[in-house]
This record gives sequence, structure tokens and C-alpha cells, in this order.
Amino acid sequence: MEPQFIRFEDVRSFVLAEGVSRPLFGERGMLNLIEFEPGAVVPLHSHPHEQLGIVLRGMQALVVDGVARELQPMEGYVLPGGVAHSAYCGPDGALVLDVFSPVREDYAKRWQEAG
Amino acid sequence: MEPQFIRFEDVRSFVLAEGVSRPLFGERGMLNLIEFEPGAVVPLHSHPHEQLGIVLRGMQALVVDGVARELQPMEGYVLPGGVAHSAYCGPDGALVLDVFSPVREDYAKRWQEAG
Repeated sequence: MEPQFIRFEDVRSFVLAEGVSRPLFGERGMLNLIEFEPGAVVPLHSHPHEQLGIVLRGMQALVVDGVARELQPMEGYVLPGGVAHSAYCGPDGALVLDVFSPVREDYAKRWQEAG
Repeated sequence: MEPQFIRFEDVRSFVLAEGVSRPLFGERGMLNLIEFEPGAVVPLHSHPHEQLGIVLRGMQALVVDGVARELQPMEGYVLPGGVAHSAYCGPDGALVLDVFSPVREDYAKRWQEAG
């Protein structure tokens, strides 16, 4: 893989149920910049991929084991692989940078198909 | 590992040559939020870890093979493991979120020692 330098606004987007995503793929991991709509809800789900992230704008709450943590800008999180989680955003939506390792091949496929 | 939820400003910082770092460690990867001083310079170096990141404020240029890419806010990059790179920041410094996979054990050690 070659080095990559991108402007996220120039990255082709793909739509997940919960918002508009702009991904950046490495080999071991990936970034995914998601613009969530006001009040967006992510249903309970899990995946084997480790997920880390940071809220950049707005509020996103992550719910694990029934406990909601409301994350404001510059607050971050780690969800080990396999941890079931849901999420909801505040009335202004949220801009969140998610990081996955390994790469979400399902995202890569959806992104390719959206091209 | 348990889920983690943190406010970066509450994370104990450690000082790299180039700026003040606040890390968040997962098992497969880590985030490192770095506040670079105006005009900060990172000498040419390489590491086997894959590095991805995004500039959040200010300007940071990454230099690979003698070519500088000046990254503005919301611009991202991927540096595959082993790619030699240097960096410099603009007159206002920069706030950059770096992502490494695997975890930088050297950072973990320095962070522990700074505690």
C-alpha cells in the first residue's frame, strides 16, 4: 500500500443507516468520519473489530450494558471487539471519527458499491 | 479489556519531542491526540506500525520521499508501516489525531513513566 493523503470532503461517501460516512482505509485499520443527523440512532449491534473513536462535533451517546455515556467534542472511547453497543445522537447530530481494526470489510464493500 | 470512555483533556499527557500527547490505548490500536507547538518539527523517522490520522486544527505537513503534503483541518493520511516520514507544522501549530496499529509500546512506556 502507498501512502495516502486525502481531504475527507473529497472522499466518496456511502450511507449507513445512521449517517453519511467517509472512510479512509489502511491495511491494519481504517478511519471512518461519520456525519450523524440530528437524533440519529444506531441500533444495538456488535462486531469482532476493535473500535476506537472521538466525537468532533455535537453529542453522541454510546450505550453498553444498558449504560449510556454521552460523549461531547474531544471525548473518546474504546470498544473492544465483540462488545454489543448502541448509540444515539443529540438534537444537533454529531460528527464522529471512528477507527476500526481490523478493516471493516463490510464497509469497504459498501463503499465500493456506492462508487 | 473493558470499554473506555474518556475526555481527552482529562487524560494524563506525556511530552514527545514534538508536542504534548494524550493517548487512548486499545488492544489492536491506539489514538494519540497531539498538540503541536507553532513551527514544531518532527525529524525523519520510521516505525513498523501503520499510522493513519487527521488534522483537526492548524496545519501539519507530512514529508515522504522528499515530497511535502500540507494537511489542513479535516484532511487525513495513511502511512503504511515502515515508510520514513518527517513533519512540520505551521505558525499556529496543529492539533492532530494520530492512529497507530499495532499499539506503540514505546508510547505506552513513556506515558506510564510520565504518570
